[in-house]
Amino acid sequence: MTTDRLPGTPVKVSRALLSVSDKTGLIDLARALAARGVELLSTGGTAKAIREAGLSVKDVSDVTGFPEIMDGRVKTLHPKVHGGLLGRRGTDDAVMAQHGIAPIDLLVLNLYPFERVAYAPDARFDDIVENIDIGGPAMLRAAAKNFAHVAVVTDPAQYAELLAEMDANDGALSAQTRFRLSVAAFNRVAQYDGRISDVLSSIAEPSDEGAKNRAQFSGQANGNFVKVMDLRYGENPHQQAAFYRDLWPAPGSLATFTQLQGKELSYNNIADSDAAWECVRQFDAPACVIVKHANPCGVAVAGGCGDAYEKAYATDTTSAFGGIIAFNRTLDAATAKTILDRQFVEVLIAPDYEEGALDYAKKKANVRVLRIPMAPPSAGFIDCKRVGSGLLMQSADDRVVTRDELRVVSKVAPTDAQLTDLLFAWKVAKFVKSNAIVYAKDERTIGVGAGQMSRVYSARIAGIKANDAGLVVPGSVMASDAFFPFRDGIDAAAEAGIKAVIQPGGSMRDAEVIAAADEHGIAMVFTGVRHFRH
Amino acid sequence: MTTDRLPGTPVKVSRALLSVSDKTGLIDLARALAARGVELLSTGGTAKAIREAGLSVKDVSDVTGFPEIMDGRVKTLHPKVHGGLLGRRGTDDAVMAQHGIAPIDLLVLNLYPFERVAYAPDARFDDIVENIDIGGPAMLRAAAKNFAHVAVVTDPAQYAELLAEMDANDGALSAQTRFRLSVAAFNRVAQYDGRISDVLSSIAEPSDEGAKNRAQFSGQANGNFVKVMDLRYGENPHQQAAFYRDLWPAPGSLATFTQLQGKELSYNNIADSDAAWECVRQFDAPACVIVKHANPCGVAVAGGCGDAYEKAYATDTTSAFGGIIAFNRTLDAATAKTILDRQFVEVLIAPDYEEGALDYAKKKANVRVLRIPMAPPSAGFIDCKRVGSGLLMQSADDRVVTRDELRVVSKVAPTDAQLTDLLFAWKVAKFVKSNAIVYAKDERTIGVGAGQMSRVYSARIAGIKANDAGLVVPGSVMASDAFFPFRDGIDAAAEAGIKAVIQPGGSMRDAEVIAAADEHGIAMVFTGVRHFRH
Repeated sequence: MTTDRLPGTPVKVSRALLSVSDKTGLIDLARALAARGVELLSTGGTAKAIREAGLSVKDVSDVTGFPEIMDGRVKTLHPKVHGGLLGRRGTDDAVMAQHGIAPIDLLVLNLYPFERVAYAPDARFDDIVENIDIGGPAMLRAAAKNFAHVAVVTDPAQYAELLAEMDANDGALSAQTRFRLSVAAFNRVAQYDGRISDVLSSIAEPSDEGAKNRAQFSGQANGNFVKVMDLRYGENPHQQAAFYRDLWPAPGSLATFTQLQGKELSYNNIADSDAAWECVRQFDAPACVIVKHANPCGVAVAGGCGDAYEKAYATDTTSAFGGIIAFNRTLDAATAKTILDRQFVEVLIAPDYEEGALDYAKKKANVRVLRIPMAPPSAGFIDCKRVGSGLLMQSADDRVVTRDELRVVSKVAPTDAQLTDLLFAWKVAKFVKSNAIVYAKDERTIGVGAGQMSRVYSARIAGIKANDAGLVVPGSVMASDAFFPFRDGIDAAAEAGIKAVIQPGGSMRDAEVIAAADEHGIAMVFTGVRHFRH
Repeated sequence: MTTDRLPGTPVKVSRALLSVSDKTGLIDLARALAARGVELLSTGGTAKAIREAGLSVKDVSDVTGFPEIMDGRVKTLHPKVHGGLLGRRGTDDAVMAQHGIAPIDLLVLNLYPFERVAYAPDARFDDIVENIDIGGPAMLRAAAKNFAHVAVVTDPAQYAELLAEMDANDGALSAQTRFRLSVAAFNRVAQYDGRISDVLSSIAEPSDEGAKNRAQFSGQANGNFVKVMDLRYGENPHQQAAFYRDLWPAPGSLATFTQLQGKELSYNNIADSDAAWECVRQFDAPACVIVKHANPCGVAVAGGCGDAYEKAYATDTTSAFGGIIAFNRTLDAATAKTILDRQFVEVLIAPDYEEGALDYAKKKANVRVLRIPMAPPSAGFIDCKRVGSGLLMQSADDRVVTRDELRVVSKVAPTDAQLTDLLFAWKVAKFVKSNAIVYAKDERTIGVGAGQMSRVYSARIAGIKANDAGLVVPGSVMASDAFFPFRDGIDAAAEAGIKAVIQPGGSMRDAEVIAAADEHGIAMVFTGVRHFRH
């Protein structure tokens, strides 16, 4: 063996083992490796495909002298393969020679599609189990451990850079590349084993029946998140933080953002941006949401971005200062100019921007401008909340209440315009920290009462804020994220001039609360749905 | 092969392979298996230990006809071992006979101590890599996949139940047990591979230097959580939820609770209990914290639980209704009686309870009573917050500000009593949702202003609440979780009769804010630390 086999030095690729379930790009890679003088070893279907492409390939069973048995369950679990992957060049040369173990310099391998099979709607239990790859992870882990001497590739997306580096480097791969590939392989194995644990630990009985009735929350929950960026600090300057994304972010989710300009995003920027974006993407018509300290402080729907912003801003001009402003339409140049000339803004978010809007934003180079391609909400999102050495996991609060579901419980029925405002206020209330009270009129917020320990204070705050903003409450509607435990909240609303109320209902004292509404001539509808958000 | 080898039927254990890094209980287990007529196979150090105990054991290298090579890197990666673990009795009998593969019915295996080695303060890079077990996970995964025929044990804690079931079952293990053990093995492998990915993806350069300078936040973050219980629903009734704990909960953390009585805990109960417990365990003297909707609505320190509760309760008797009440001392019978006679309470929390307290609680059988053994806070806790397809991770906000760190910035210095109150209010403010303003006097909260989008509203709410509760604000101190952007907050405080203020400082307008304090004769101290909590 030569000294170029030592750790830290480039490794020239002379022999490669290819064994892939996903055959994307396989033939091109095999051809490219062969053209570079690399000897190819392979197994089963991969060997067949390479051979059919007219390339020379050696079967692993010829290397091991042991056939593939048990329908492929055992084919590579052999010292001649694993010795070739794990052997330390320089240290193990003699024992490798003694046992006829030839070094393998490159492993190209991807795993049985456990995830695809296991998450298919009609997954059969036996298919789930049979798609747990045993030989594949063993080889990946062996090659990855021995990155000092071996390179490992787990994904067709890596093939091009692999060949590029070999070409630039006389057929060799650098130590840094081998380590990077090793980490990627261990990351992939952690994902794979995480999904196996997720799936199997959600099944109570080893049968098709068990597979069909798997628990929504598995016995062990395994998460794998990819770092997007380190953050300068966390929620506070003395905390360290980083932002991660799911392996496969849902289209239209915050994690799919592109930052077009501006300072680095902070922890609080990201948290607030998520609240603003999730709130604004609920609306079909053009909408604007301004978030401050995790709460919407102004929301409006209008004919366009400009009108929507003006109305949202007017709700609470004080809080809007330094806020996060999100739109669900391409942001036009005129509105961008209005915002940036008028107020300090931390983050602007929109599905897209007119060129003129981006040009104008450059004048305020610190403002963070995010583009998030719009897409309909995905189902199945799992929310979580950290508590002391624990984790609360729950399905997302993605329940949408339609006009048809509303139940009028008062003597007076809401007018069409009131119904529109009630549903608007309801959508906003869902994103206000509990207890939440939202006053609204003409599809704009008039006052937002957030984060109180009792509901009646939220109502008082909404009123105080509306008055401070010089907005007219009388004639407005009110949304409450949870039921009114007593009639006092309705009495206070009536005094403020509220004409219609939307709330879940379900209090022991609903009769008293409805009677209060009737006394005041207020229209009241029940949603049957609560939206606590703490 | 007999029909008792078919899936779904018990498997009599005739041959076991033992290969353990942690040798706890090994000899007792080996002796017990031998006494039950089980043939023992083993490797390296495990075989040596068994042999030294006077038991008969066969070396795996005698089974494979292949020696252990490469310092143990390759010893079990052989078809005779993996065929024995993966062979499907009934299906693969002929091929097993043909190749001289003897079935293995039981695998007892635990892994190289990667976690211990990698998280040691002075971990050397080579030691980290060498402790990545390759053969072990391969065998665990093979045996676990083949649970239809094989049992797998990964932890000495499982030995006793294994033997008990064999004894109760004529030396056999049921299909259900084998599946349960299989799931446990896949769970363990997911944890192991998760830690390898965590550690390696935090290292930029493959060297001791790289290992020393590893990133606090790894390139891939892998979490493994154990389900404690399914919950009836999530934050709202239309959401599904479950509660999980860390693999190794920190002593004194919420996840170590025992529920002594009462209805099932809900999602919101757990979230609020965590806030109450983390807040109350900050205090050295006896303290009581009442939490409602994620915010402390009353906190007090006093000579004992009874006084502390009375003072905490008085802050906001309305919000306390249906609250979570936590103590940092053994709860006495008299206080328990006072609470339960007076108010509706969702959860009681204490490090312990007098017998009389528990007896009295039985009269209110629905009240959830939690015991959490007290322990000093652990360092290194990682907090997380879910956003759209992403995860914000940060070190916990566990910064404690001491009296010596306070910087007096006003002309008037706070008195000793005021300093005590300021530090008390500061501790409470850390647990109030931002923006947070806390009025306090004599180590009790007088008014709590929470969750507002601008600071001046939090101050107004604290004042409104104090007045509504009939508490006297003049002479109180005020804590603010973040700096005052303008002097208006101080002016409002002065008008309410506040005499001393604690806040981080750091505003562009600190001079203006300090001047306001001086004008009003208010003592003001800066902490230099912010405590946003959204």
